[in-house]
Amino acid sequence: MEIKSRIWIEKEGKPFLGFGKIQLLKMVDQTRSISAAAKSLNMSYKKAWNLLNDMEELSEQPLLVKHIGGKSGGSTVLTAYGKTIIKEFEHLNTKCETFLNNEFKTSAHGVSES
Amino acid sequence: MEIKSRIWIEKEGKPFLGFGKIQLLKMVDQTRSISAAAKSLNMSYKKAWNLLNDMEELSEQPLLVKHIGGKSGGSTVLTAYGKTIIKEFEHLNTKCETFLNNEFKTSAHGVSES
Repeated sequence: MEIKSRIWIEKEGKPFLGFGKIQLLKMVDQTRSISAAAKSLNMSYKKAWNLLNDMEELSEQPLLVKHIGGKSGGSTVLTAYGKTIIKEFEHLNTKCETFLNNEFKTSAHGVSES
Repeated sequence: MEIKSRIWIEKEGKPFLGFGKIQLLKMVDQTRSISAAAKSLNMSYKKAWNLLNDMEELSEQPLLVKHIGGKSGGSTVLTAYGKTIIKEFEHLNTKCETFLNNEFKTSAHGVSES
Protein backbone atom coordinates (compact mmCIF):
# COMPACT_ATOMS: atom_id res chain seq x y z
CA MET A 1 0.00 0.00 0.00
CA GLU A 2 1.05 3.52 -0.68
CA ILE A 3 0.09 6.83 0.80
CA LYS A 4 -0.46 9.64 -1.69
CA SER A 5 -1.03 13.34 -1.22
CA ARG A 6 -1.76 16.59 -2.94
CA ILE A 7 -1.03 19.97 -1.44
CA TRP A 8 -2.19 23.42 -2.48
CA ILE A 9 -2.08 26.94 -1.13
CA GLU A 10 -5.10 29.17 -0.69
CA LYS A 11 -5.17 32.91 -0.21
CA GLU A 12 -8.26 34.75 0.94
CA GLY A 13 -10.08 31.42 0.52
CA LYS A 14 -9.15 31.19 -3.15
CA PRO A 15 -6.78 28.68 -4.74
CA PHE A 16 -3.44 30.44 -5.20
CA LEU A 17 -0.96 27.70 -5.97
CA GLY A 18 -1.32 24.02 -6.72
CA PHE A 19 0.29 21.26 -8.70
CA GLY A 20 -1.17 22.43 -12.06
CA LYS A 21 -0.16 26.07 -11.64
CA ILE A 22 3.35 25.06 -10.57
CA GLN A 23 3.66 22.92 -13.71
CA LEU A 24 2.57 25.91 -15.78
CA LEU A 25 5.05 28.28 -14.10
CA LYS A 26 7.83 25.74 -14.65
CA MET A 27 6.98 25.41 -18.33
CA VAL A 28 6.91 29.20 -18.77
CA ASP A 29 10.32 29.27 -17.09
CA GLN A 30 11.59 26.61 -19.48
CA THR A 31 10.09 27.94 -22.71
CA ARG A 32 10.06 31.70 -21.90
CA SER A 33 6.65 31.77 -23.54
CA ILE A 34 3.09 31.46 -22.25
CA SER A 35 1.86 30.06 -25.55
CA ALA A 36 4.65 27.44 -25.75
CA ALA A 37 4.05 26.51 -22.10
CA ALA A 38 0.31 26.17 -22.73
CA LYS A 39 0.91 24.00 -25.82
CA SER A 40 3.29 21.67 -23.99
CA LEU A 41 0.65 21.15 -21.28
CA ASN A 42 -2.18 20.61 -23.82
CA MET A 43 -3.87 23.71 -22.49
CA SER A 44 -5.41 26.59 -24.44
CA TYR A 45 -3.53 29.90 -24.39
CA LYS A 46 -6.60 31.49 -22.79
CA LYS A 47 -6.68 28.91 -20.00
CA ALA A 48 -2.96 29.36 -19.30
CA TRP A 49 -3.28 33.14 -19.37
CA ASN A 50 -6.22 33.02 -16.95
CA LEU A 51 -4.37 30.74 -14.52
CA LEU A 52 -1.31 33.01 -14.56
CA ASN A 53 -3.50 36.06 -14.17
CA ASP A 54 -5.32 34.54 -11.17
CA MET A 55 -1.94 33.87 -9.56
CA GLU A 56 -0.64 37.36 -10.24
CA GLU A 57 -3.76 38.90 -8.75
CA LEU A 58 -3.33 37.00 -5.48
CA SER A 59 0.44 37.25 -5.35
CA GLU A 60 2.27 39.68 -3.04
CA GLN A 61 4.87 40.25 -5.72
CA PRO A 62 4.95 39.93 -9.52
CA LEU A 63 5.60 36.42 -10.81
CA LEU A 64 6.25 37.15 -14.47
CA VAL A 65 8.03 39.79 -16.54
CA LYS A 66 7.06 40.29 -20.17
CA HIS A 67 9.74 41.41 -22.59
CA ILE A 68 8.02 42.84 -25.62
CA GLY A 69 9.45 42.76 -29.16
CA GLY A 70 12.98 41.86 -30.18
CA LYS A 71 14.10 39.30 -32.72
CA SER A 72 12.15 36.44 -31.22
CA GLY A 73 8.97 38.49 -30.87
CA GLY A 74 9.14 38.91 -27.11
CA SER A 75 9.31 36.54 -24.20
CA THR A 76 7.87 35.96 -20.73
CA VAL A 77 10.24 35.13 -17.91
CA LEU A 78 9.78 34.39 -14.24
CA THR A 79 10.78 36.88 -11.58
CA ALA A 80 13.08 35.76 -8.76
CA TYR A 81 9.94 35.56 -6.62
CA GLY A 82 8.25 33.36 -9.23
CA LYS A 83 11.21 30.99 -9.12
CA THR A 84 11.24 31.03 -5.32
CA ILE A 85 7.62 29.98 -4.98
CA ILE A 86 8.19 27.02 -7.34
CA LYS A 87 11.14 25.88 -5.21
CA GLU A 88 9.26 26.36 -1.95
CA PHE A 89 6.14 24.59 -3.18
CA GLU A 90 8.14 21.61 -4.39
CA HIS A 91 10.16 21.55 -1.19
CA LEU A 92 6.99 21.54 0.91
CA ASN A 93 5.53 18.81 -1.30
CA THR A 94 8.60 16.59 -0.94
CA LYS A 95 8.67 17.15 2.83
CA CYS A 96 5.00 16.23 3.03
CA GLU A 97 5.53 13.03 1.03
CA THR A 98 8.51 12.01 3.16
CA PHE A 99 6.60 12.72 6.36
CA LEU A 100 3.57 10.71 5.24
CA ASN A 101 5.63 7.78 4.00
CA ASN A 102 7.39 7.57 7.36
CA GLU A 103 4.16 7.89 9.32
CA PHE A 104 2.49 5.28 7.16
CA LYS A 105 5.36 2.81 7.43
CA THR A 106 5.70 3.10 11.18
CA SER A 107 1.99 2.86 11.88
CA ALA A 108 1.53 -0.49 13.64
CA HIS A 109 -2.00 -1.50 12.71
CA GLY A 110 -4.80 -1.37 10.24
CA VAL A 111 -4.47 0.28 6.83
CA SER A 112 -0.70 0.29 6.70
CA GLU A 113 -0.27 -3.28 7.95
CA SER A 114 0.72 -4.81 4.64
CA MET B 1 -2.32 32.19 3.23
CA GLU B 2 -3.22 28.66 4.10
CA ILE B 3 -1.76 25.32 3.15
CA LYS B 4 -4.29 22.62 2.26
CA SER B 5 -3.91 18.92 1.61
CA ARG B 6 -5.66 15.76 0.58
CA ILE B 7 -4.34 12.31 1.33
CA TRP B 8 -5.41 8.95 -0.04
CA ILE B 9 -4.19 5.37 0.03
CA GLU B 10 -3.56 3.24 -3.02
CA LYS B 11 -3.22 -0.50 -3.20
CA GLU B 12 -1.85 -2.26 -6.26
CA GLY B 13 -1.96 1.13 -7.97
CA LYS B 14 -5.72 1.47 -7.36
CA PRO B 15 -7.41 3.96 -5.03
CA PHE B 16 -8.25 2.09 -1.84
CA LEU B 17 -9.14 4.78 0.68
CA GLY B 18 -9.71 8.49 0.39
CA PHE B 19 -11.75 11.25 1.92
CA GLY B 20 -14.99 10.27 0.12
CA LYS B 21 -14.80 6.59 1.01
CA ILE B 22 -14.02 7.43 4.64
CA GLN B 23 -17.10 9.68 4.76
CA LEU B 24 -19.16 6.81 3.37
CA LEU B 25 -17.81 4.30 5.89
CA LYS B 26 -18.52 6.75 8.70
CA MET B 27 -22.10 7.25 7.54
CA VAL B 28 -22.65 3.49 7.28
CA ASP B 29 -21.29 3.21 10.82
CA GLN B 30 -23.69 5.93 11.97
CA THR B 31 -26.81 4.79 10.13
CA ARG B 32 -26.15 1.02 10.02
CA SER B 33 -27.48 1.12 6.48
CA ILE B 34 -25.85 1.50 3.07
CA SER B 35 -28.96 3.08 1.61
CA ALA B 36 -29.34 5.61 4.47
CA ALA B 37 -25.61 6.42 4.23
CA ALA B 38 -25.88 6.93 0.47
CA LYS B 39 -28.91 9.18 0.88
CA SER B 40 -27.25 11.37 3.49
CA LEU B 41 -24.30 11.87 1.14
CA ASN B 42 -26.53 12.61 -1.88
CA MET B 43 -25.20 9.51 -3.56
CA SER B 44 -27.07 6.77 -5.39
CA TYR B 45 -27.31 3.39 -3.66
CA LYS B 46 -25.50 1.85 -6.62
CA LYS B 47 -22.62 4.32 -6.35
CA ALA B 48 -22.26 3.71 -2.60
CA TRP B 49 -22.46 -0.05 -3.07
CA ASN B 50 -19.77 0.09 -5.77
CA LEU B 51 -17.43 2.20 -3.62
CA LEU B 52 -17.84 -0.16 -0.67
CA ASN B 53 -17.37 -3.15 -2.95
CA ASP B 54 -14.15 -1.70 -4.41
CA MET B 55 -12.83 -1.19 -0.88
CA GLU B 56 -13.77 -4.70 0.22
CA GLU B 57 -12.05 -6.18 -2.82
CA LEU B 58 -8.76 -4.45 -2.02
CA SER B 59 -8.98 -4.84 1.75
CA GLU B 60 -6.94 -7.42 3.66
CA GLN B 61 -9.87 -7.96 5.99
CA PRO B 62 -13.65 -7.52 5.74
CA LEU B 63 -14.88 -3.98 6.41
CA LEU B 64 -18.61 -4.61 6.71
CA VAL B 65 -20.92 -7.21 8.17
CA LYS B 66 -24.45 -7.53 6.85
CA HIS B 67 -27.13 -8.64 9.26
CA ILE B 68 -30.06 -9.88 7.22
CA GLY B 69 -33.68 -9.69 8.33
CA GLY B 70 -35.03 -8.87 11.75
CA LYS B 71 -37.60 -6.28 12.72
CA SER B 72 -35.79 -3.41 11.03
CA GLY B 73 -35.22 -5.36 7.81
CA GLY B 74 -31.51 -5.94 8.34
CA SER B 75 -28.54 -3.70 8.88
CA THR B 76 -24.94 -3.21 7.80
CA VAL B 77 -22.31 -2.58 10.42
CA LEU B 78 -18.59 -1.98 10.33
CA THR B 79 -16.13 -4.62 11.49
CA ALA B 80 -13.49 -3.67 14.07
CA TYR B 81 -11.06 -3.44 11.15
CA GLY B 82 -13.42 -1.09 9.30
CA LYS B 83 -13.51 1.16 12.36
CA THR B 84 -9.74 0.99 12.73
CA ILE B 85 -9.04 2.16 9.20
CA ILE B 86 -11.33 5.18 9.69
CA LYS B 87 -9.44 6.12 12.85
CA GLU B 88 -6.04 5.60 11.26
CA PHE B 89 -6.91 7.51 8.12
CA GLU B 90 -8.18 10.47 10.12
CA HIS B 91 -5.19 10.33 12.42
CA LEU B 92 -2.81 10.38 9.44
CA ASN B 93 -4.78 13.23 7.89
CA THR B 94 -4.62 15.32 11.08
CA LYS B 95 -0.91 14.61 11.47
CA CYS B 96 -0.32 15.66 7.88
CA GLU B 97 -2.25 18.90 8.35
CA THR B 98 -0.38 19.76 11.55
CA PHE B 99 2.96 19.00 9.90
CA LEU B 100 2.19 21.14 6.86
CA ASN B 101 0.88 24.05 8.92
CA ASN B 102 4.06 24.07 10.98
CA GLU B 103 6.31 23.79 7.94
CA PHE B 104 4.41 26.54 6.18
CA LYS B 105 4.51 28.88 9.17
CA THR B 106 8.19 28.46 9.84
CA SER B 107 9.24 28.75 6.20
CA ALA B 108 11.16 32.04 6.03
CA HIS B 109 10.61 33.22 2.47
CA GLY B 110 8.40 33.31 -0.55
CA VAL B 111 4.93 31.78 -0.59
CA SER B 112 4.47 31.63 3.15
CA GLU B 113 5.77 35.13 3.83
CA SER B 114 2.44 36.75 4.58
